[in-house]
Amino acid sequence: MAAFARRFEGVLESLLSGEAVEGEIIRPARLVAAMRHGALDGGKRLRPFLLMESARLFGEPGDALMRVGTALECIHCYSLIHDDLPAMDDDDMRRGRPTVHKAFDEATAILAGDGLLTLAFDIIADPATALPDPIRVALVLELARASGLGGMAGGQALDLEAERDAPDEAGIIRLQAMKTGALLRFAARGGAIAMGASPDAVARLTRYGEITGLAFQIADDLLDLTADAATMGKATGKDAARGKGTLVSLHGPDWARARLAQLEAEAAATLAPFGAKAARLNALAAFIGSRPS
Amino acid sequence: MAAFARRFEGVLESLLSGEAVEGEIIRPARLVAAMRHGALDGGKRLRPFLLMESARLFGEPGDALMRVGTALECIHCYSLIHDDLPAMDDDDMRRGRPTVHKAFDEATAILAGDGLLTLAFDIIADPATALPDPIRVALVLELARASGLGGMAGGQALDLEAERDAPDEAGIIRLQAMKTGALLRFAARGGAIAMGASPDAVARLTRYGEITGLAFQIADDLLDLTADAATMGKATGKDAARGKGTLVSLHGPDWARARLAQLEAEAAATLAPFGAKAARLNALAAFIGSRPS
Repeated sequence: MAAFARRFEGVLESLLSGEAVEGEIIRPARLVAAMRHGALDGGKRLRPFLLMESARLFGEPGDALMRVGTALECIHCYSLIHDDLPAMDDDDMRRGRPTVHKAFDEATAILAGDGLLTLAFDIIADPATALPDPIRVALVLELARASGLGGMAGGQALDLEAERDAPDEAGIIRLQAMKTGALLRFAARGGAIAMGASPDAVARLTRYGEITGLAFQIADDLLDLTADAATMGKATGKDAARGKGTLVSLHGPDWARARLAQLEAEAAATLAPFGAKAARLNALAAFIGSRPS
Repeated sequence: MAAFARRFEGVLESLLSGEAVEGEIIRPARLVAAMRHGALDGGKRLRPFLLMESARLFGEPGDALMRVGTALECIHCYSLIHDDLPAMDDDDMRRGRPTVHKAFDEATAILAGDGLLTLAFDIIADPATALPDPIRVALVLELARASGLGGMAGGQALDLEAERDAPDEAGIIRLQAMKTGALLRFAARGGAIAMGASPDAVARLTRYGEITGLAFQIADDLLDLTADAATMGKATGKDAARGKGTLVSLHGPDWARARLAQLEAEAAATLAPFGAKAARLNALAAFIGSRPS
């Protein structure tokens, strides 16, 4: 995963170049710098890794899949930049570095997020992402639905409402399925779609992605309750301090650990038809349950 | 144009429904309301109108073109919502109504912009936009380039820099070609691409779109110098008060009027090979030069 992250960083960096491409006029230097600050942050690149490993069930994923992965990561990074803004979660630090609006300014952070969001669709639609037109256009639609008002962005809107009016358990599950689940679901499902997998295989990877999303969130909430700020590189216990309910705060850490084990088994059962080929995805589900990105 | 705007409003409204579609979970009511506030504002819908009229040179544009028009307008409206934010232009009113962050709150306005931006690509990629896959994916790429870091969003970044460090004439022209020109260029060019026009025809419509963008900006800057707030429904003289240079402030209103006449003639010459079919686009160029939207 670390080797993948290094290789991925190079591809993402080349796409965040300061040189304008066909159809662009210039790329303003300060905006490019802010986008790079927000995107090239040495993250684990969990979502693109998941996409690549999902694709690998159906063949050797090539450069086209790496590019789809950068698009997905652009969406993830834009959401972090906007979520960190003073009007949203108001975070000054992320991964031990100043957030984009702290390192630059608020207006530039808003535009850097907008730029990354737009670039995601640019990358997938670009013929340089060497997949057939029907697959590229299907991936644009899937990614838009996963990240828009009925997915990730909608989840952030629900999260803001949750500070004023605490949701019940069903509400928490829905909020998390949108805010963090939708992109992980896309990662697993998108890898299968990009490789032209059968409808049954796409459905299995979709379910695997949903299970992974649930496990990721529970592990994250468990860590938020237990870890200290030094380990996380950002403020912790913050959700609890704001009175935001999580499944872990509702049911306790013992329940959370049991649920994670259950989800890991469910992921393995979902991928059973793929046999030994699914070993890495099973290991990934275990990793996600044990330690979030 | 007024009849078109009414018909357009109905299509856009149906796409901004509160009902989740396939691949979405729910659409949060407050976010939908903010997106509707920002998008369904009774605007003139100049960009979609231009797209439709460009397409009409090549045949009867159908519902698919209307949908591409709504995508383009979603981009325009997201940019207005984000530009109005306190960290950007800090405007309280637009078209005589409170801006989205005033009517809702800042966080919701940021997310409403993000939601509209994402929805634009959703709409084009959706098979309900009944154009061939290669054309839908080409339109996604064109729209992303026009609106991203090397187009509209980049232009807004340059505009912010211009407040600190006044650009020279070439810098002003570049800023405006990105901030307002890129979407008008897309409108004219995209209409031709969507209808499968020849490369020569696409090039002519592209040039027509660029000319239209120049005329739009000069007319807008001329109005900003001369109109009062009641006519515009928003604060005026604001750019001048901030010391932002425009071509009109550099060269004066007489130069601007002569330049507008020149651009109108240039638009007509560019479209001459289309003969009488181009009458409406020629009238549109004259309209844009005489009174901006």
